[in-house]
Amino acid sequence: MRNLLLEIAYDGTNYHGWQVQRNAVTVQEVFQNAAQKLFCERPDVKGCSRTDSGVHANSYFLTLKTDSDIAVENVVTALNTYLPKDIAVLSCIDTDYEFHPRYNVKSKEYIYKIYNGKIRNPFFKNYAYHYKYPLDESYLREEAQTFVGTYDFKGFCSANSKVEDTVRTVYSFDVWREGDMVYFRVEADGFLYNMVRIMVGTLIFVNEGKIKKGELRDVILSADRKKAGKTAPPQGLYLNKVNY
Amino acid sequence: MRNLLLEIAYDGTNYHGWQVQRNAVTVQEVFQNAAQKLFCERPDVKGCSRTDSGVHANSYFLTLKTDSDIAVENVVTALNTYLPKDIAVLSCIDTDYEFHPRYNVKSKEYIYKIYNGKIRNPFFKNYAYHYKYPLDESYLREEAQTFVGTYDFKGFCSANSKVEDTVRTVYSFDVWREGDMVYFRVEADGFLYNMVRIMVGTLIFVNEGKIKKGELRDVILSADRKKAGKTAPPQGLYLNKVNY
Repeated sequence: MRNLLLEIAYDGTNYHGWQVQRNAVTVQEVFQNAAQKLFCERPDVKGCSRTDSGVHANSYFLTLKTDSDIAVENVVTALNTYLPKDIAVLSCIDTDYEFHPRYNVKSKEYIYKIYNGKIRNPFFKNYAYHYKYPLDESYLREEAQTFVGTYDFKGFCSANSKVEDTVRTVYSFDVWREGDMVYFRVEADGFLYNMVRIMVGTLIFVNEGKIKKGELRDVILSADRKKAGKTAPPQGLYLNKVNY
Repeated sequence: MRNLLLEIAYDGTNYHGWQVQRNAVTVQEVFQNAAQKLFCERPDVKGCSRTDSGVHANSYFLTLKTDSDIAVENVVTALNTYLPKDIAVLSCIDTDYEFHPRYNVKSKEYIYKIYNGKIRNPFFKNYAYHYKYPLDESYLREEAQTFVGTYDFKGFCSANSKVEDTVRTVYSFDVWREGDMVYFRVEADGFLYNMVRIMVGTLIFVNEGKIKKGELRDVILSADRKKAGKTAPPQGLYLNKVNY
């Protein structure tokens, strides 16, 4: 049996995240429907990550087990015909039978976009968070370096999460501006539920002086969700890169 | 009575164009609903152009007659509160009572976007036309200069149009590439129904050799819709600038 590794991209606006759930349309379900048409059976599909409702992916990996001998190029073409236009298959290769798209992840990178114009841009409604007060991206880049390292990020995790091990290693955190758009890019060995969105919400508190210069380290060490900022909204978040 | 001139931008994805019509949501209707909340009466709103279903506007002008003495800055802020997030008011000034946003137009500029990557980009589903075969933007820029001038553009007008005078003057036509995105920008004293979309569809015929080098002039002079290309889809089209 083959184990195909596919890279896809999707606009998460119309989906309740990746993972199949009752009474809601998810990327996994729609992908499985397309794959079923191609392979004439409902294949076993595993994803690299859950993503939340409205969250996007520039690069998302999944595996699909099949007995079919269809060429990988044809898998790409055929699935792109069956999939809706807000999901695209970018590539497909044969991989080891044992390869798991989630367990084998070495690190992941997310990007968060804040549109920082005074007046909202209608084209970014579903693609960035509109924050209209001045954002000091140089100061935020400096302060965000505090996140880099191995910490118990329990305070940067949704209260709904049941994960027990909340220690993660953040490898890098960059913040930069292109015109009115401010980008946050963070790479880590793994992320807790809502972790990037809470980090961005916390940097907004830093920008507003609610967390003062140098205080972010204490916020992290407190491991107290109430000391961190709000959870930034989903539409600004993009899974950008998965490293194996 | 005041005559306010407002500049707005909108993502046309969820609208059946600008103009009020029965059984369909339009930008004008939604705008009038918001204005009614602010002015406590349904104001007389005139737009600079009809746009089609799914067509966008980076800059669209409208006038609104009112007896209210509300300050122009407050009109902007209040309307942006009442409007949905895919429409934004960019500015508002007081103008002459006689000023008409359509009759006073000196020229308009449209941009058309073609996403020319081999595989579709899910984020451009509603924002560009996906054309996957190689586009030679330099050649198209050269050939597109044939459109510049005063011509009877009857062949570049939807058969459904009832306009009698089909002579228009095209001032400039530019074509350029940024990565996988190819941009078409055309400025004219006015546009016929579907004119830009048929021009772009015709340039695709030029790209494919269905219209050969130097033949475009004859296509224009024939004034025959059947000799021009297909009408390119609406989601790539943006009203970009209106000059008064």
